[in-house]
Amino acid sequence: MSHPRVRLSPDTRREQLLDLGVSLLATRSLDELSIDLLAEEAGISRGLLYHYFRNKQEFHRAVVRRATDDMLERTTPDPSLDALTRLTTGLAAYLDYVESNFEPFMSLVRGAASGDRFLREIYEDARGVLTGRILDSIGELGLTRSAATRLLIDGWAAMVEETVISWVQEPSVSKDQLIGLLAAALPAVLHAAESPARPVGA
Amino acid sequence: MSHPRVRLSPDTRREQLLDLGVSLLATRSLDELSIDLLAEEAGISRGLLYHYFRNKQEFHRAVVRRATDDMLERTTPDPSLDALTRLTTGLAAYLDYVESNFEPFMSLVRGAASGDRFLREIYEDARGVLTGRILDSIGELGLTRSAATRLLIDGWAAMVEETVISWVQEPSVSKDQLIGLLAAALPAVLHAAESPARPVGA
Repeated sequence: MSHPRVRLSPDTRREQLLDLGVSLLATRSLDELSIDLLAEEAGISRGLLYHYFRNKQEFHRAVVRRATDDMLERTTPDPSLDALTRLTTGLAAYLDYVESNFEPFMSLVRGAASGDRFLREIYEDARGVLTGRILDSIGELGLTRSAATRLLIDGWAAMVEETVISWVQEPSVSKDQLIGLLAAALPAVLHAAESPARPVGA
Repeated sequence: MSHPRVRLSPDTRREQLLDLGVSLLATRSLDELSIDLLAEEAGISRGLLYHYFRNKQEFHRAVVRRATDDMLERTTPDPSLDALTRLTTGLAAYLDYVESNFEPFMSLVRGAASGDRFLREIYEDARGVLTGRILDSIGELGLTRSAATRLLIDGWAAMVEETVISWVQEPSVSKDQLIGLLAAALPAVLHAAESPARPVGA
């Protein structure tokens, strides 16, 4: 927010405030992120802030949405790569994101479990984008779409989230090893589902 | 609470109140479960209830603990069975429990994600018991314990929770099929971790 020599458009200003909100979330929980704190850090009045965000709840939702969009953008796969490489590079980018943005990421996860319907929707939208990328690769991985694969891809996404959160807090294996484990887990789970012992129908 | 002809011990009475609390949770969230409602349903005064539970928070924690203990008890494996049968019967019992006790179960899951440290501890204890049962079977499944297997077993538990919650709300495959998918996923994930391409060290 330094030297506002150029008059910023309201949209640009709002984007800057959201970036600031996400960066403030690095060292505190969503509950601790108040409009007062944002005003102080941005060097503008509370009154002006209420021009951009109707209330604390709207501000929180917008900040979580912004953090989530960042994560989705940074993990966007390069379509020129093959499915398995997209999977490992996507996992590496996701791991990097969670490692560097642990608190904003946890705000998303905790928000989803809270009673806030909008935070839950942001979370589910993001989960949908991430699992959609996997579903798009399913044919390339030699597998077919079915109700079972959809369930298992969602389950694998939960496995990735759980494992990454616990790894960031206690890195018991190397980062490369974790990426290898999670990348190997996906085809393993999906191929096991296609084993002839238990036919999988869609 | 019918015909209290025999004077109940305080412990027995408290247990009955907790059972009532869990059953009330079948049709409402934890937030909606008040001391007033419990008093009305139990046919006793609010004052007497505060003899058993210091406040609403303590009551909520005790109810969630009770629901969790029920789940752990009902899913206790029969030690005379082999590891794979223990896995499938354990999964079937877990699925039955979540299906019949969806709201109490979701109170546990949501409580864990909330800021309440005690609810989080109850959840983590329960998760620890469930994954501990898997860890105890690891040798019998032809696998070895390592930091990687521990991470993946936790990840698989998250996959089971996610998949079962989503299946109860939208049963897109049969119950037997779901149990088969989740049972097959565990050794698949663990064996993939032991593949020689990426050596797994503890």
